[in-house]
Amino acid sequence: MKVLVVGANGQIGKHLVTLMQNSDSFKAKAMIRNQEQATFFEKLGAETVVVDLEQDIESIAKAAEKVDAVVFTAGSGAHTGKDKTIMVDLDGAVKTIEAAKVAGVKRFIMISSFDTRREAILSAPPSFAPYVAAKHYADEWLKRSDLDYTIIHPGLLTNDQGTGKVNAAYEVDRGEIPREDVASVIMATLENDTTIGKQFQIVTGNTPIKEAVVSI
Amino acid sequence: MKVLVVGANGQIGKHLVTLMQNSDSFKAKAMIRNQEQATFFEKLGAETVVVDLEQDIESIAKAAEKVDAVVFTAGSGAHTGKDKTIMVDLDGAVKTIEAAKVAGVKRFIMISSFDTRREAILSAPPSFAPYVAAKHYADEWLKRSDLDYTIIHPGLLTNDQGTGKVNAAYEVDRGEIPREDVASVIMATLENDTTIGKQFQIVTGNTPIKEAVVSI
Repeated sequence: MKVLVVGANGQIGKHLVTLMQNSDSFKAKAMIRNQEQATFFEKLGAETVVVDLEQDIESIAKAAEKVDAVVFTAGSGAHTGKDKTIMVDLDGAVKTIEAAKVAGVKRFIMISSFDTRREAILSAPPSFAPYVAAKHYADEWLKRSDLDYTIIHPGLLTNDQGTGKVNAAYEVDRGEIPREDVASVIMATLENDTTIGKQFQIVTGNTPIKEAVVSI
Repeated sequence: MKVLVVGANGQIGKHLVTLMQNSDSFKAKAMIRNQEQATFFEKLGAETVVVDLEQDIESIAKAAEKVDAVVFTAGSGAHTGKDKTIMVDLDGAVKTIEAAKVAGVKRFIMISSFDTRREAILSAPPSFAPYVAAKHYADEWLKRSDLDYTIIHPGLLTNDQGTGKVNAAYEVDRGEIPREDVASVIMATLENDTTIGKQFQIVTGNTPIKEAVVSI
């Protein structure tokens, strides 16, 4: 399965491309913002394509040509301004969804925030609420698309080594999860079409990832 | 016709409530952020209701009870941070749309930006693009609702006295328009159900407002 990874140069993205390139069943196409980011992915033998998420839908659609799925794991990051929250986390995501449609790619995995429900916007600290709102509207746009979507809501991301075990369900208690495990969950999700049209939260737990994802 | 004016304390809002209270056919209910803003509206004999757009849908829905239409003319303003762009221009608008549904109010007038099409997000200066994106998604949300909506896209707003004459169509050349004329256009729109399900741009022009709105 060939997968366009949007936000490949992010921390989850790098884990995901690495795991995919080391697997038998996946090939990653890394969508990166500039050519200087390519070396990491070329060393893994992954194809790269340079597109900035602030470009138009057509540029992203061209990157999505001839792949079997799109994974959106781009994020404006905690240190950018709130303008990027709208332009990347919301508008970049929506453009990627529309680009998948244009390119005829049905399968779409969204890496969301842990809780993007309307109530979570209201209860978030003021400095975090705009990010939650941006992710909320991106998720809503995807749910209203006709794509074969899955929305993954990871807990607090850490750089710890993956444990391979998670707790995954529509709603789980808050907790941490290593980015490497999120990458494994994405692959397991792509391998299980029973996850289509669903969303789930994930934190570190006791169930092997493949088993946890199958049971969603 | 009783109309909830969301963003009543804004510059268009104040003109709108004034014109409505001085008319035979409208009564305004001014939704304001805090009680200190009430005096202006009480002097006009307008009902007021204190709700902050960052509150929940239910609070806004309560304000919308027993009105015949909702006008959204709130804006975060040019001097607030981009976080308010998401929280007011996008999320505040969407919550107001949802609140109108909850309250059973079908008629909804959105005061948008001059051009909120996808291409306008791309072509906007970087500092303005997040605002255009926020208004784009608010407009999209409204178009996908089942409300009897009209979206008004005014040109560059001025504080000049109204001329009573505009150029209005789905697409017009860029130009200025006094806020007072925008308020008159809103009232003419509410009086003409032929505007339901439509959007139009307005700038100062040669056609009397009522005539221009009827021809939309």
